[in-house]
Amino acid sequence: MNPYHLAPSEVVFKGKWIESRKTDFTAKKNGAQGTWESTHRNKPPGVHIDGVSILARVKKDGKIYILLVKQYRIPVGKVCLELPAGLVDEKETIEQAALRELHEETGYKANRVVKVSTICYLDPSITDDSQKIVIVDVDGDSSENKNPVQKLDPTESIEIVLVEVSELNEYISNLDENVVVESTLLSFSMWNDFIGS
Amino acid sequence: MNPYHLAPSEVVFKGKWIESRKTDFTAKKNGAQGTWESTHRNKPPGVHIDGVSILARVKKDGKIYILLVKQYRIPVGKVCLELPAGLVDEKETIEQAALRELHEETGYKANRVVKVSTICYLDPSITDDSQKIVIVDVDGDSSENKNPVQKLDPTESIEIVLVEVSELNEYISNLDENVVVESTLLSFSMWNDFIGS
Repeated sequence: MNPYHLAPSEVVFKGKWIESRKTDFTAKKNGAQGTWESTHRNKPPGVHIDGVSILARVKKDGKIYILLVKQYRIPVGKVCLELPAGLVDEKETIEQAALRELHEETGYKANRVVKVSTICYLDPSITDDSQKIVIVDVDGDSSENKNPVQKLDPTESIEIVLVEVSELNEYISNLDENVVVESTLLSFSMWNDFIGS
Repeated sequence: MNPYHLAPSEVVFKGKWIESRKTDFTAKKNGAQGTWESTHRNKPPGVHIDGVSILARVKKDGKIYILLVKQYRIPVGKVCLELPAGLVDEKETIEQAALRELHEETGYKANRVVKVSTICYLDPSITDDSQKIVIVDVDGDSSENKNPVQKLDPTESIEIVLVEVSELNEYISNLDENVVVESTLLSFSMWNDFIGS
């Protein structure tokens, strides 16, 4: 339930990819007022979920790996270790977007979609940027995945990393100090820390 | 390593809480050009990490719960299920911020900080909004946690939820359709789906 009376939002920046807004609000319970500032992606027509992140399990040489990417993020100013991810195109299902983005960013082809999550919001205090998280299986021993070739946009530079799942925490702990981590991946990796001790 | 030549950023919106920027970039490898649009929180002086999210393990009546919050998020326009979280204040350590925010948002007092994660970025393709994830232990049977009382700002309305850890996935799957989930929490809950089948 919405605890606020909301005034119509004012668009304060209208870009090609995002727009920023100010929204005046009043708490229904006590009349306390404020202004919320937020940023929103411009979505293609008919697209209601901005993107997908992919948890790819790669079975290769009898081991299980998670497929990660490293790329320089201009907003952050650093190289970021992330799940493969991307925006959903017009007229594309979430599954299609996940398989396409995985192939484009990493060159790998998945052979099975294991699970599609509910919608989730990446940073809901400042944006409605949303995604679904998709678990896929990749047969790393198959011929089509022997020499994966990325299909990147001219401006993209993405490094692929295969990390044994059992070594994910150690891998993240030992990252070069110039490499940072994306939150969806980091919290995922903390399950055993939470359960463990 | 930065694969781009970056022009100085242009501030296109300067708000009280956030500012939005445009940054022209040129790929070093091929000269391909573009403009990146991003949003950045205004940080207090001396603060380099915007916020904390708290993975609180509550031991109560012989069971282990995870402590979650539900709150209406104006950018999203819906109630969001989230980890307790908040911004780091000036001259505050991450541990202090985690314990303070947990107490303010939920009324619970933690008795131990178990782990402080590395820095992570919530949505690095559009913002440098950053956090550390802090695991804490809460003794739900102690006298100070028998009747937890929130200390909320006048504009805040936050509902507390205790979910048995073993039932977290089921709880998220069965959320009311008007309630959405934050990404850091959702990916955390998907570890067993990834490992499992």
